Amino acid sequence: MKSVIKNSLSLTVLATSLLAVGAYAAPANDPATLAQIRDNAMKSDWAYERLADLTDLVGPRLSGSAGAAAAVEQVADAMRKLGAKVTLQPVKVPHWVRGAESAELVEYTGRPAGITQKVVLTALGGSGATPAAGLTAPVVIVRSFEELKAKGAQVKGSIVLFDVAFDQEMANRGHAGPAYGHGAGFRFAGPKLAADMGAAAALVRSVGGADYRIPHTGATGVVEGARIPAAAVTSEDAMLMSRLSVRGPLKMHLTLTPQNLPDADSFNVIADWPGTDKADEVVIVSGHLDSWDLATGAHDDGTGVAGAMGVIDTLKKLNLKPRRTIRVIAWMNEENGTRGGKAYFEANKDKLDKHFAAIESDSGGGRPFGFIGSVTPPMVKYFAPLKDVLEPIGAGIFERRDIAGAADTGPLERAGVPVFEPLVDSSAYFNYHHTPADTLDKVNPYELKRHVAVMTSLTWYLANMDENIGRVAPQQD
Amino acid sequence: MKSVIKNSLSLTVLATSLLAVGAYAAPANDPATLAQIRDNAMKSDWAYERLADLTDLVGPRLSGSAGAAAAVEQVADAMRKLGAKVTLQPVKVPHWVRGAESAELVEYTGRPAGITQKVVLTALGGSGATPAAGLTAPVVIVRSFEELKAKGAQVKGSIVLFDVAFDQEMANRGHAGPAYGHGAGFRFAGPKLAADMGAAAALVRSVGGADYRIPHTGATGVVEGARIPAAAVTSEDAMLMSRLSVRGPLKMHLTLTPQNLPDADSFNVIADWPGTDKADEVVIVSGHLDSWDLATGAHDDGTGVAGAMGVIDTLKKLNLKPRRTIRVIAWMNEENGTRGGKAYFEANKDKLDKHFAAIESDSGGGRPFGFIGSVTPPMVKYFAPLKDVLEPIGAGIFERRDIAGAADTGPLERAGVPVFEPLVDSSAYFNYHHTPADTLDKVNPYELKRHVAVMTSLTWYLANMDENIGRVAPQQD
Ligand SMILES: [Zn+2]
Ligand SMILES: [Zn+2]
Repeated sequence: MKSVIKNSLSLTVLATSLLAVGAYAAPANDPATLAQIRDNAMKSDWAYERLADLTDLVGPRLSGSAGAAAAVEQVADAMRKLGAKVTLQPVKVPHWVRGAESAELVEYTGRPAGITQKVVLTALGGSGATPAAGLTAPVVIVRSFEELKAKGAQVKGSIVLFDVAFDQEMANRGHAGPAYGHGAGFRFAGPKLAADMGAAAALVRSVGGADYRIPHTGATGVVEGARIPAAAVTSEDAMLMSRLSVRGPLKMHLTLTPQNLPDADSFNVIADWPGTDKADEVVIVSGHLDSWDLATGAHDDGTGVAGAMGVIDTLKKLNLKPRRTIRVIAWMNEENGTRGGKAYFEANKDKLDKHFAAIESDSGGGRPFGFIGSVTPPMVKYFAPLKDVLEPIGAGIFERRDIAGAADTGPLERAGVPVFEPLVDSSAYFNYHHTPADTLDKVNPYELKRHVAVMTSLTWYLANMDENIGRVAPQQD
Repeated sequence: MKSVIKNSLSLTVLATSLLAVGAYAAPANDPATLAQIRDNAMKSDWAYERLADLTDLVGPRLSGSAGAAAAVEQVADAMRKLGAKVTLQPVKVPHWVRGAESAELVEYTGRPAGITQKVVLTALGGSGATPAAGLTAPVVIVRSFEELKAKGAQVKGSIVLFDVAFDQEMANRGHAGPAYGHGAGFRFAGPKLAADMGAAAALVRSVGGADYRIPHTGATGVVEGARIPAAAVTSEDAMLMSRLSVRGPLKMHLTLTPQNLPDADSFNVIADWPGTDKADEVVIVSGHLDSWDLATGAHDDGTGVAGAMGVIDTLKKLNLKPRRTIRVIAWMNEENGTRGGKAYFEANKDKLDKHFAAIESDSGGGRPFGFIGSVTPPMVKYFAPLKDVLEPIGAGIFERRDIAGAADTGPLERAGVPVFEPLVDSSAYFNYHHTPADTLDKVNPYELKRHVAVMTSLTWYLANMDENIGRVAPQQD
């Protein structure tokens, strides 16, 4: 109660002072409208229903797949039904298709006659293939790039395992992103480095938490013509191999038969909700529509797409017209190429001055605490009214960063467009992310409502601001 | 500290009073020897090393498999090395071999053209097979046997799903066993009932906790000549099917190609540690050596076997000779037939009066709190000294039950032999039990030490007791 009273007071004071100096386009960004947006979003099931449609009806949506194509249609249809102006922007995407995948330890010290130990793994996106009957090679285990280099000739012809554990303690302390980044570095760069040293294949320990012997897939860095088979083993199987390696040398039989097909045709779904007096300027609000193939991509990034769609639903229900055009984008191919983000940037690079800001949600549907944004420090104060309206739902934190760092909006951000993201609890996110378990039941419907409340309030606020928050001397209109 | 002081006092009082009345065979069951056993077990890694050998070197041990045969050899060798007298008791076991397994939802309301939804499942032990190319049938979802019966003709030719959720809350409250029993009832009886009504196949929702889209296998009840394909789907996939069924009818394509082969030859491993003045009487201490095939059976029941083996290791290190013979048994085929327990009973049914008691550990390697036992109420008081010695390691609870209910020792118990089990925290046990995730890393080495301390103290105590704790007027020697 205490904080609510405090907010009411500060909102009143602020609204009065703003009217006095005329700095804001009231009523567009007035506290009452923002509160209406917030409260309406907190009551609506619409975004959850869209998330259910996307995950239950379409399912996995890897770039180039039938699922990705169906998802483009489904989201475009839903946005058209709301009355948004929908454009499908063509994007050529990598087309990687998972094949057979299996592995057994066929030699190790203490192995009883006739016994092999199964290793649970899944190919990494972009992985090359073994022969159809598999390959057999010694396993070399390393825990750093330095150790890989030090192993030198031993690597040639071997299967390299990067056995680097995900730092769940770091994730629990609130730094899931950096914990993931550390592990994903091995996943992305490790196989290519091993290939350069002549390895027959490369394995990484799954990047993510949880202890249920599920592998976490993800993209690996590939060089055309030099792809080696690359897979993520479960934490359990990485630990097994490390334990067995203490007893003596290991040999693995590995079968991975994914295919790297020619680039496929796909689309960014772009849905405009037209602005009024500043209609030529846009505020992007977005998530990525593609997902990995093992699950239905509920957290990654169904919640981002549903949250962005929910912005328009909320404003439509309240019959609110923004000053700037709100552009919902469901990006294609964030996971293994970010071709959607690149294509959008290419098509819009001479219109950057018309891009006021971009929001991207891609950290899962965990509890939102507020939002982050890459504005300059002097701009932070202009977000006080937005913080105040989100505080009563526990989402009033604004954390400024030099770089927000979302993938699809990365090219825009690097060119000076401020990028915003919801600030969410992602301590459990990497338990599910890129695994078979990223399914609808993992998304808390209440948190998705709160997510939509943050996304919509933030989008509306940006679409109606007077201050130019651009970072690199953007032109004024 | 308080409770330790209390124990020391009561032990002193008790020892004094026992010496006075001469009721116990001191020093064999004296508190000092019991404390020595307890403290030695708490310091030893031996049992954990045996568990590592069993899980890392042998791995899965389903009855009839090469793993089961290798496990028999490994455990027999280890017991021979300790100097125990090892017998391999022949047992004919069911020989069921997992085949291909996959499922997709091929029709549902709202399905985009070209899309099918994958369902993650695993065949139940004893399952029949679909044609190699699979079968396609409507899905009928029920939540009780009553509902199954009420669906009548609809069941014929359909794939029945028993969508009954595991009650994790009940498990958290300390009643994991009954929670499991409820779900396992559907797994065991459901497919047979569905078969009787003409179902094409039967699915059960996985019986166990955790939310990582892993299926839990287990045995299903089968009638020769009337086996239908039967599998466990993950909780996530059961929920998906239930959600989709709200939108309209479902059809599934299901492929399961397990084989039911002729019974195979296998063995109970029986290792005797000879008694002294009552050498013709035996105290059994046991776990089951077979495991499901998806994992390495670390908790189920590697910890039981390693714990039983640890009894002999502990006594040998202390050079302690029991009055009665201690008989370690690693049972074969607990999981899908309990043929080992039945064979032992058949071979020993005219020697039941020589079976003083039997201990079986098969609830996983969670934290032990004490022990349970099926003695009559007047016998409980004779266990006070044992409780006192286990109390300082937090394992001093003795919970009497009319029936302990362990599987392999069931025939002995029903014939009047008192059965004991460690009392353990099994609230997380069913997260791993029968899944691919029941691996060595899940076993806490400290808890395994405590487990061995309880098993050894209890075994030693029973082997040296004067009171006859038999339940059905057993003959005195
Ligand atoms: Zn993502
Ligand atoms: Zn068991």
